[in-house]
Amino acid sequence: MDRRKFAGVAAGAVACRLTGADRPRMDAAKLEATLTALSLIGRPAGGSFYSGVSRIGYSDEDIAGRAFITGLMKKAGAKVRVDAAGNIFAERAGTDASLTPLLFGSHIDSVPSGGNFDGCLGSVSAVQILQTLEDAGIRTRRPLTAVVWACEEASFAGLSLNGSRAAAGEMQVAELKTVSNGLVKADAIRRIGGDPTRIGEARIAKGAYHAYVELHIEQGGTLARRKIPIGVVDGIVSVDSYDVVVTGEPNHAGTTPMGERQDALIGAAKLTLAVRELVMSETGAQVGTVGHIDVSPNASNVIPGEVRMSIELRDLSASKIEVVGEKIRSRAAAIAKENRTEIRMTRKGHHDPAMASVEIQRVIEIAARKLGLASVHLPSGAAHDAQMMAKLMPMGMIFVPSVGGVSHSPKELSSWEDCANGANVLLETILELAAT
Amino acid sequence: MDRRKFAGVAAGAVACRLTGADRPRMDAAKLEATLTALSLIGRPAGGSFYSGVSRIGYSDEDIAGRAFITGLMKKAGAKVRVDAAGNIFAERAGTDASLTPLLFGSHIDSVPSGGNFDGCLGSVSAVQILQTLEDAGIRTRRPLTAVVWACEEASFAGLSLNGSRAAAGEMQVAELKTVSNGLVKADAIRRIGGDPTRIGEARIAKGAYHAYVELHIEQGGTLARRKIPIGVVDGIVSVDSYDVVVTGEPNHAGTTPMGERQDALIGAAKLTLAVRELVMSETGAQVGTVGHIDVSPNASNVIPGEVRMSIELRDLSASKIEVVGEKIRSRAAAIAKENRTEIRMTRKGHHDPAMASVEIQRVIEIAARKLGLASVHLPSGAAHDAQMMAKLMPMGMIFVPSVGGVSHSPKELSSWEDCANGANVLLETILELAAT
Repeated sequence: MDRRKFAGVAAGAVACRLTGADRPRMDAAKLEATLTALSLIGRPAGGSFYSGVSRIGYSDEDIAGRAFITGLMKKAGAKVRVDAAGNIFAERAGTDASLTPLLFGSHIDSVPSGGNFDGCLGSVSAVQILQTLEDAGIRTRRPLTAVVWACEEASFAGLSLNGSRAAAGEMQVAELKTVSNGLVKADAIRRIGGDPTRIGEARIAKGAYHAYVELHIEQGGTLARRKIPIGVVDGIVSVDSYDVVVTGEPNHAGTTPMGERQDALIGAAKLTLAVRELVMSETGAQVGTVGHIDVSPNASNVIPGEVRMSIELRDLSASKIEVVGEKIRSRAAAIAKENRTEIRMTRKGHHDPAMASVEIQRVIEIAARKLGLASVHLPSGAAHDAQMMAKLMPMGMIFVPSVGGVSHSPKELSSWEDCANGANVLLETILELAAT
Repeated sequence: MDRRKFAGVAAGAVACRLTGADRPRMDAAKLEATLTALSLIGRPAGGSFYSGVSRIGYSDEDIAGRAFITGLMKKAGAKVRVDAAGNIFAERAGTDASLTPLLFGSHIDSVPSGGNFDGCLGSVSAVQILQTLEDAGIRTRRPLTAVVWACEEASFAGLSLNGSRAAAGEMQVAELKTVSNGLVKADAIRRIGGDPTRIGEARIAKGAYHAYVELHIEQGGTLARRKIPIGVVDGIVSVDSYDVVVTGEPNHAGTTPMGERQDALIGAAKLTLAVRELVMSETGAQVGTVGHIDVSPNASNVIPGEVRMSIELRDLSASKIEVVGEKIRSRAAAIAKENRTEIRMTRKGHHDPAMASVEIQRVIEIAARKLGLASVHLPSGAAHDAQMMAKLMPMGMIFVPSVGGVSHSPKELSSWEDCANGANVLLETILELAAT
């Protein structure tokens, strides 16, 4: 993106090609109905919309959800294509074929027992925008491309942002051989319509798109607490992911004296508490989580012989979490020694912080203002496909409030009004960016 | 058992019906070969005898192991029957049909990734004794019954001693409805040839058998450390088992500030360390273990919302572990409060301590002495089917050394010489007890 072109936005020079009265608006009832329909796919038996969803990336539920969203894309008159990573693109021509398209979207896969807004709001809104423009007979100057990224949530070997990482050229060939629940990742990609043998072709060239915009729920409590309907994201935090293996000695729980035990779970428990303590020992907003733990042999009458666990650290400053990671590593060594176990800690993932384009932030701010909505700038504590797109093109993100800041949970909740407001800000932002 | 009859043993009045030269002996090479053949059933792919075994009760491997041992029973000329709980009895007539039979045996199921001696040594030795007597043309005065108990290790809802509990009339009807890995316990019992609708018929009446004797590896390190080949068990410890559920709030690992988390795994980690601390805070040999832990949703990027974990406490004194259990319960309440989680702790199992018959201990001691083997009295830290039989009849147990005290592990090991010595002590003990 040419910064000079965007400089004009701040000065209000990028004029809207439609008058205020003609501006299309999102149909809030339709948005709710579509999100509700999507929520049925992966809903726990006997549950309601508010029972959450399990639509794990590459699963049968994911495949069904993708078919549902593909149907909506086609209904909106878009040309649909699936790339080698399984990302779904819905293309709509503009009036000037010489311009690069504007890209916007999100994902529809969920964590196990997740909520119905994370990813879905941005994906359904993006597709509904195509339908809204189609219904209103509006053709933007730039071509538009709505995208639904494949498997955004952590999956094989805990790696997330799978589809968008492939688009950024960061999916490794070795990853394709990893196995989860008996399924090889290459086959997982194949089953959603991708082609792992041609994964390199999923890579998006720099300059291929004009910009990327994503609407998402905040997943934190800032907007809800401050009662501000629109968040303008100024950056996405850096994430370090570690795999830890604690190795002790499995032994009989009745006959092994307490003093002679090499209990891997005792080591893991100490390390779990140490992660929290060391993350909180410094000022700042950094967070650290042990979310996954597998004990072997995991029988009530056997002293645990091995524990595999995850550690995840996040902050806007990559160097800060690197320092915290090193502190955890040296504490792990001390725990291993005192506990007579072995602890191996391996960094298996790293996402750089990703800054949003200042110009797009400004377009979002103006869009909110036009709609009479207050907005505030804030960082994203969660990873998003947008951070991969930030490597390739100017990126912007719009947040709407999450009640209580709850996410990755069936209790994840955003009001329908906030959802519709966010979708209208996305629509307004797209109309602005596609007009230039 | 009439104590007066046994009083004579101590005075040497129960004469052996065979002279020393005629006494049959176990074929050590055959014992090794049979244990090795059994170890193939449930052996990890590509492993050796010393890679351990996973022959979980009621599994396909268990069923195959039971078929193997049933074949040996039939080959030894015994009459085989399976009771409603799936226990296998091999009956051999004595010369005096008016006498009650002598019962002896063990189990062949294992923990996940267990060893090849726990249970198997006692089971294979019991059946080989029938074959040895058959080969030597010896008929004892009393009838003999070798038994292989169904599913001794913890299984459905963590309950152990399944077959022998049914024989003691302690299997509850409600248990039959519990589910493990999608399998209902009643169906599990049915698939090994039992009949859950008639589980009450598995109950053994008091007085139906003369006594029960079990040979087993120590599973602790006392005999190996003291280099004593034979242990005479004077009692089996009491066991209390608890189920714990820690309930927090699942939430996004990136967007939830550290101070606002209700992390169930933090509560579980504190409780795991508290169990160890509180068990060790009193003098004595009591032990406490958290061996099983399940985290939900167990994803690296989600704050754990729920943790289910086991706590198991053991000591020869039932009141001591009850006191420790109450201390853990009140600590759990404090952790729940400081951690803003809920902790529910339910005692789901209790085994009283079981004392071995003093008279049978004496018979075992004399048997070892006759064979030129040193022996020592010791308690059993592990639960055994023998403790259920102690409710019905005089009970005795023979231990052989476990190298390093390791058990419930692929590294579980007893020397072949120690195994053969233990089997010979069992044979001698049976000949003595069956002669009266």
